[in-house]
Amino acid sequence: MAKEIKGIAASEGIGIAPAYRLVAPDLSYPKRRIDNPMVEYKRVLQVFDESIAEIRRLKERSHSRLSTEKLAIFDAHIEILSDPELLKQVKQLIDQQVSAEEAVDQVTQRFAATLAQVSDPYIQERAGDVRDVAKRALSHLLGKKLPDIAAIDHPVILVAHEVTPSDTSQMDAKYIKGIVTDLGGRTSHAAIMARTLRIPAVVGTDHVTKSTKDGQIVVADGLKGTVTVDPSQSAIDHFITQAQKLDQQRDEWAAMVHALSISRDGQRFEISANIGDPNDVADALRQGADGVGLFRSEFLYMGSDHLPTEDEQYRAYRQALINMQGKPVVVRTMDIGGDKPLPYLPLPREMNPFLGYRAIRICLKHPEIFRVQLRALIRASKYGPLSIMFPMISTIAELRAAKKIFNDCKAELQKERPGLGDDIKLGMMIEVPLAAINADQFAKEVDFFSIGTNDLIQYNFAADRGNDEVSYLYQPLNPAFLGLIKHVIDAGHRHDTKVAMCGEMAGDRFALPLLLGMGLDEYSMSASSILRTRALMAKLDTNECARLVDAAINDCVTANAVQQLVKKRITVE
Amino acid sequence: MAKEIKGIAASEGIGIAPAYRLVAPDLSYPKRRIDNPMVEYKRVLQVFDESIAEIRRLKERSHSRLSTEKLAIFDAHIEILSDPELLKQVKQLIDQQVSAEEAVDQVTQRFAATLAQVSDPYIQERAGDVRDVAKRALSHLLGKKLPDIAAIDHPVILVAHEVTPSDTSQMDAKYIKGIVTDLGGRTSHAAIMARTLRIPAVVGTDHVTKSTKDGQIVVADGLKGTVTVDPSQSAIDHFITQAQKLDQQRDEWAAMVHALSISRDGQRFEISANIGDPNDVADALRQGADGVGLFRSEFLYMGSDHLPTEDEQYRAYRQALINMQGKPVVVRTMDIGGDKPLPYLPLPREMNPFLGYRAIRICLKHPEIFRVQLRALIRASKYGPLSIMFPMISTIAELRAAKKIFNDCKAELQKERPGLGDDIKLGMMIEVPLAAINADQFAKEVDFFSIGTNDLIQYNFAADRGNDEVSYLYQPLNPAFLGLIKHVIDAGHRHDTKVAMCGEMAGDRFALPLLLGMGLDEYSMSASSILRTRALMAKLDTNECARLVDAAINDCVTANAVQQLVKKRITVE
Repeated sequence: MAKEIKGIAASEGIGIAPAYRLVAPDLSYPKRRIDNPMVEYKRVLQVFDESIAEIRRLKERSHSRLSTEKLAIFDAHIEILSDPELLKQVKQLIDQQVSAEEAVDQVTQRFAATLAQVSDPYIQERAGDVRDVAKRALSHLLGKKLPDIAAIDHPVILVAHEVTPSDTSQMDAKYIKGIVTDLGGRTSHAAIMARTLRIPAVVGTDHVTKSTKDGQIVVADGLKGTVTVDPSQSAIDHFITQAQKLDQQRDEWAAMVHALSISRDGQRFEISANIGDPNDVADALRQGADGVGLFRSEFLYMGSDHLPTEDEQYRAYRQALINMQGKPVVVRTMDIGGDKPLPYLPLPREMNPFLGYRAIRICLKHPEIFRVQLRALIRASKYGPLSIMFPMISTIAELRAAKKIFNDCKAELQKERPGLGDDIKLGMMIEVPLAAINADQFAKEVDFFSIGTNDLIQYNFAADRGNDEVSYLYQPLNPAFLGLIKHVIDAGHRHDTKVAMCGEMAGDRFALPLLLGMGLDEYSMSASSILRTRALMAKLDTNECARLVDAAINDCVTANAVQQLVKKRITVE
Repeated sequence: MAKEIKGIAASEGIGIAPAYRLVAPDLSYPKRRIDNPMVEYKRVLQVFDESIAEIRRLKERSHSRLSTEKLAIFDAHIEILSDPELLKQVKQLIDQQVSAEEAVDQVTQRFAATLAQVSDPYIQERAGDVRDVAKRALSHLLGKKLPDIAAIDHPVILVAHEVTPSDTSQMDAKYIKGIVTDLGGRTSHAAIMARTLRIPAVVGTDHVTKSTKDGQIVVADGLKGTVTVDPSQSAIDHFITQAQKLDQQRDEWAAMVHALSISRDGQRFEISANIGDPNDVADALRQGADGVGLFRSEFLYMGSDHLPTEDEQYRAYRQALINMQGKPVVVRTMDIGGDKPLPYLPLPREMNPFLGYRAIRICLKHPEIFRVQLRALIRASKYGPLSIMFPMISTIAELRAAKKIFNDCKAELQKERPGLGDDIKLGMMIEVPLAAINADQFAKEVDFFSIGTNDLIQYNFAADRGNDEVSYLYQPLNPAFLGLIKHVIDAGHRHDTKVAMCGEMAGDRFALPLLLGMGLDEYSMSASSILRTRALMAKLDTNECARLVDAAINDCVTANAVQQLVKKRITVE
């Protein structure tokens, strides 16, 4: 019998395929005394050999897709399974009549616990590897199948409790026709990845893993936010028609690639792309981006085993600017904190990393790190129109300190090359509540604002956007929050400061009419949302939208009421 | 040679006494093979006996001071030292030529690691006990003295890296003449405890532990925020004079106990106490509190092994109201979250507990827990003027949901006793940025606001107030933040809603003139700050203060500039 499960529409499109459940099997085992230690130990040896062979196969299959670093993890796993000390301890336990399952479990737990106590983060990570290996060996011992993303080689709908960055790094997007999860909201990792890879996704279903069996046909409707398990043939036909309609709409959007970003009444705006890597530029251009509104520079720091040098950074920024062919690029300076540990930059473990030592706070305390990035940016600026923005600014004193370091770097470089960097525009993220509140003061000091709605919402509602228990407080359409956004835009315009937005909200079809009505200048989003947004923008009248803003802020009390209002007043496809 | 170390003035007063360094000695030991296992094992047995005897002595000495629960920890430690399995494993290692130090270290680490893996939080705590015991035994083996707060029996200045709640629970306040720490800010645990116990304190010195030896004379000047190590005799004389002056000033303040809280120009305000327990009421009255502005109800939940029943809560609230002799009491409903685990209420472990599932968010999801508290409060309300306030409100929808549950409870109870609870005033904390921003809407829905500045600052600056790396962002005097406070007060008054403040800022001598100038109605603070604040208030003119507010918000850009301005315009003793 078909059943429909409701969730959150997280990535547009309709996917139809058999379910692949990314759910760990129950690896518990009964405690038992064994009679024949020799037989039991041979089981272990056999299973270790099987596991090694399996890991080798996975490694070969992933060769073209994964980085050298990721591939090295496979070798680390093989090494653990070949460790004579581990086998020796397993054998000792088995000789004491402990079962193979229990012996493997106990010894690997002990190894992992020892590794986890070492303060070196590299060695700590090895503890996770030991646990992964233990799971694989145990599953073989128990004759259970371990789900394995890297092994997927046919079209599936991925059904998971949640999807982690380590999962997505192993995914072959060509086989994943949809992603459906129990947990997560529109800004969860799964949702963002799905939109980037253009895979239909429904998240936050609460129980889809419990309601699906492996191999059952599943439809992920990322437009409506529903998951249909075991649909009837007529339902499948219906979904196929829907998917075709969506394809047509996509054709219509495709026609917008070279169009200007203008409203129905002819107002001109910019729709740009958020990118995480210079390689993303090609896709941004393919999707008709007017520029790059957010170039996250973290990839330089996260994907390396040392602090990236000035030359390494310079080459990355230069490449992005050249590839963008004269369109503007906004680079956000290092936005790293205690929740993303870097082996070469020890940061304190924090109780609340989102309220901790991160981003500009680290840069101001370590100008020697900050200067490397700023110098690289200034040097790269001759290859295209570059803007730089500082994340996590709370106070004017911080902004001035950051600008001073920038100006010092520029003065140094200008000794050799006069005028270098003079065209760079300086801006700041508006993501800390006090910065939004104090927008009038800040507007006097920068060329542009970029509103980072994900953080601005999380801090204004005091609700971690990764925490499902409080996800109901992710309310971009809350009237009081809309009032704050409007305040920032008005403050910017009072001082001739351009105002952009680079959070999730910029690509939200319910938010767009409101942002347009407030006069937001630039909309930066996942490349995959650009054409749809441009098509919608062309249908909207800014005066009508301005009246909508008044009604939303003054007459509505809840986010829900605002959404209803937008639906009623604006025909949003 | 005398040296002066600068820190943060955290608790007023001047303390002079020998240093007692609460710094763990180096317990590392050289790895060595031993020749005579029997001798080595006897060393272990002797040291375990010494440790047990020492713990017994500590327990006896603490008997009158500590709760039964705290005393039970001593027994747990003795039990660990008497565990035959532990001794057996130590002996096994020693028999393999491992030294006593290494054997004790390894075996206790193994025990602790095993305990720490169990999911039961009670057993997890045992892991900490094992580590404590190991430290004690190791220090004896190495002939080093372990600092022990519970053992202090003569006047000292406590010199510590930081002070934890478990440290303060063992302190005998009569011997602690001052507290000086490396870490911490004005809202750190050490600072709050010191003010409550009225012990002079200087925190955030960065290196006082490194600059002090045990037994050296130390002066903690909690007014200026300086620590003087090894002062000259003339310096000591000077500090004694200062301390006497302060005593005189305290006499002057004492004369304010029965005075009204009024400004120089005759405006009437309220200065109330923050309390955590009905027993604190006596002290609040002794310090001349006009009422209780914040009664934290957490003690009912934290100090119990089960969810407190309606009757248990009723008795606590009734006692507080009766003891306050007709003065108003504001109770804040349950403000608990993932950072304060309760054994009987399993909460998820969170990445960012301060942005997590806590306070009203739990109460709205679990009305069955919330209703118990609200019914108890409504029943107690006939014993005195009671107000109830909800913490962590972000949206109007949450406030309305909380009010609905309250009204349902009241209607139920009124079936038996008409009119019961009709006099209760309902309010909300203003501590989430969006609630402050949206104060005009909220003011229409409640009788009063209470601004919780500690959280409001931490969320507005996106900076965890317990995190030393970002403590520079604790800026109550930041002009933009002052503007937000003024906005809340103005919004409240536009709708006849009383505005109180119950964070640290309410008792700050630099903030007081500004808050008075904004017309804040009620100032709730540690009981120990009430008289000083009342004395200062009597010297201030509200019109002059209002002009000060204008200058601070409009002419200043940094918190520092505001502080200088207040210093210049107002003579603050």
